[in-house]
Amino acid sequence: MNTDLRDAILRAVDEGFDEQIAYTQKLVSFASQRGEEFTIQDFIYDDYAARGFKMDRFEMSEAELTNHEGGAPFAAGHSCAPIVVGIHHPKEEKRRSLILQHHLDVVPVGPEDMWEYSPYGGEIVGDRMYGRGAGDMKAGAGANVYALEALKRIGLQPASTVYLQSVVEEESTGNGALQTFLRGYTADAALIPEPEENKLARACSGVLWFEVEVRGIPVHVRQMGEGANAIDAAYRVIGALREIEAKWNAEKDQHRGFEDEPKPINMNIGIIKGGDWGSSVPAWCRFQARISIYPGQKAQDKLREITDHISNFARGDRFLGQNPPRVTQNGFNAEGYYLEPGSEAENTLARAHEVAFGAKLESFTTPAYLDARVYALYNRIPTLCYGPVSRNVHGFDEYVSLESLRSVTKTMALFIADWCGTEAI
Amino acid sequence: MNTDLRDAILRAVDEGFDEQIAYTQKLVSFASQRGEEFTIQDFIYDDYAARGFKMDRFEMSEAELTNHEGGAPFAAGHSCAPIVVGIHHPKEEKRRSLILQHHLDVVPVGPEDMWEYSPYGGEIVGDRMYGRGAGDMKAGAGANVYALEALKRIGLQPASTVYLQSVVEEESTGNGALQTFLRGYTADAALIPEPEENKLARACSGVLWFEVEVRGIPVHVRQMGEGANAIDAAYRVIGALREIEAKWNAEKDQHRGFEDEPKPINMNIGIIKGGDWGSSVPAWCRFQARISIYPGQKAQDKLREITDHISNFARGDRFLGQNPPRVTQNGFNAEGYYLEPGSEAENTLARAHEVAFGAKLESFTTPAYLDARVYALYNRIPTLCYGPVSRNVHGFDEYVSLESLRSVTKTMALFIADWCGTEAI
Repeated sequence: MNTDLRDAILRAVDEGFDEQIAYTQKLVSFASQRGEEFTIQDFIYDDYAARGFKMDRFEMSEAELTNHEGGAPFAAGHSCAPIVVGIHHPKEEKRRSLILQHHLDVVPVGPEDMWEYSPYGGEIVGDRMYGRGAGDMKAGAGANVYALEALKRIGLQPASTVYLQSVVEEESTGNGALQTFLRGYTADAALIPEPEENKLARACSGVLWFEVEVRGIPVHVRQMGEGANAIDAAYRVIGALREIEAKWNAEKDQHRGFEDEPKPINMNIGIIKGGDWGSSVPAWCRFQARISIYPGQKAQDKLREITDHISNFARGDRFLGQNPPRVTQNGFNAEGYYLEPGSEAENTLARAHEVAFGAKLESFTTPAYLDARVYALYNRIPTLCYGPVSRNVHGFDEYVSLESLRSVTKTMALFIADWCGTEAI
Repeated sequence: MNTDLRDAILRAVDEGFDEQIAYTQKLVSFASQRGEEFTIQDFIYDDYAARGFKMDRFEMSEAELTNHEGGAPFAAGHSCAPIVVGIHHPKEEKRRSLILQHHLDVVPVGPEDMWEYSPYGGEIVGDRMYGRGAGDMKAGAGANVYALEALKRIGLQPASTVYLQSVVEEESTGNGALQTFLRGYTADAALIPEPEENKLARACSGVLWFEVEVRGIPVHVRQMGEGANAIDAAYRVIGALREIEAKWNAEKDQHRGFEDEPKPINMNIGIIKGGDWGSSVPAWCRFQARISIYPGQKAQDKLREITDHISNFARGDRFLGQNPPRVTQNGFNAEGYYLEPGSEAENTLARAHEVAFGAKLESFTTPAYLDARVYALYNRIPTLCYGPVSRNVHGFDEYVSLESLRSVTKTMALFIADWCGTEAI
């Protein structure tokens, strides 16, 4: 890329950055927890249409998704919000097509009194923009738009097809991203600006979600020996699951990209509910678990390993033997992936990053779910998960670094110009 | 008591028993969980008035109750339903006055699909009447009325004042019973027909209710080491509480009436709730605990022992040391009692029981809360907790034995005639 074009792109990102910040704040202002994403997706639809994209909007199909090996069950709470795709066609297809993707669902805010800043306020203090989803990943969603706007500002547009995909269900199933694949969308590469600390995700784990329910005969607490406390029993099942977690962590040396992670496999008990009355021995307890798996492992194989282990444990337990816990998969059924180094897409991103940051692009392993798995595993295209610095993602006072976002947007604009080529509008 | 009167009373109970069963079913048909007892207490008010009692109805006073050493805090969910007292004055006070008490609040039914019978149906199958509260203690509430009705059926009434007390909050605080004391009610003895297996409660434990809340900084599960899982932390606190439970159980030899109980002190974790999202490390977890204490121990002393133990444990825990658990007393603040054997009231009950059952009256220790503690500890009167056979109290398909109820009602009618004397209506 010639120096003039490069400098013009960098300047254009700077010139549009105030507008980009305001746009990101607008996105943060939508409460878009699971099932609530209708208004933000409608905003996106109208916004992209106004920016000149051709628009496609479609539903997630339970039949199609649950027939696919990477699809997750439609449990209670599954979003019905649409998936939105904005399509840019160049005057002439000159180089390589690209998918720019983001998700706009966010996780719950938790007890609001534990926030110093308003969860949907998008408040800016110094370099930080605060809010649920500010990092994960509304800043990235804004960057997808404003990387393209930077080119427009200097009279250019990509010289190849670009798909701007706005999805939901990233935080619970990954069904939104998978539906774009099932709809037939593909390209020569995909870029997803998740909050990745200005780095490239080299590998990400798969994730399983499941609920465990324990039920048993309750009694008055004075006869506690006769009854069985479902809350105590649930805790014993959690203990058995910790054995699985330890076993899988002990296998990390066999998994490329995970050898140096201190604890690549995390099992999280994210929600627990049980019992109805202080002086009644609880008859029921349910908990929601999330566990990661290594790339290359099949989600259903690992789920079976979990259910078998719970069954074996339960058989040896005086209470659980009579009341076997019920395990229900109620979300992620996702494999992980490993991004082979050396692709032309990665090399292009690395060059752009070096210009924007004046430093080499680093890569790292993330023991989290990424929608990137859909493009890596099923589209089988180079998939670049790369995005800004953030903190407290899924926590309180989540924020994104604005200077990081500015530089990441520069990388993205340069990457698009290089990967797709440019043409005059 | 002469044989003719005795036989007439026994016959009168039999003759009224179908009506008594229908009345008990009517009581069971009221869903009267905590806070819902308005309609059943209004039914009682109208019913007692129609039966000729002078009526008193009053509120539980938060100020009065929380100033009393046996009063429990008014936590969320505390009932506002009134306390109802029906008063019988004889033409001439000849013998000894009596309090007949029952509570009409019931505990939650739990998941309804775990019931074979309808929780509020009062269905009768053979000897059993099923329903939430059938045993605990709507059968007793009916017996209080129909023991007196048996006398009326043969033209008699007690020759002393009788207070028929219908209270609430027995399952959570005992504040209803305590309010009758604070209102000034007292008598020469009290009888409470709780479901006690045709036996007399010799001793009952005190009970404490408290909630423990753990909060901590949550993070995305990929950074689990940085955050702290409040659900895991809550289970560690439960472990520390089990140490208290074991310590107190080891002291049972020092407590009259509890030496032979296999496990006199039960700590029950009755409710647990925590977390908002499967893939977020939970920031909060709350659980509701209930623990018993021995008679003679002060509730506040034992609560302090618990909070001190939790504090000490927390100080040594990497996460809890930074995020001390909050302990809130949110119910029972009750001492237990020991009924001194040999009172005239007990002897009178024993004679009546022997007539009704043809067997000696047995006594036993119950490691549960009983409203009887109010009359034993504060009124300082002989308090007889004695009532029918039941099963699955606080559980599913709770039922009361009707033949047991019939005989218990006979005991009660004989007891009243003997204790209070009789006069022609």
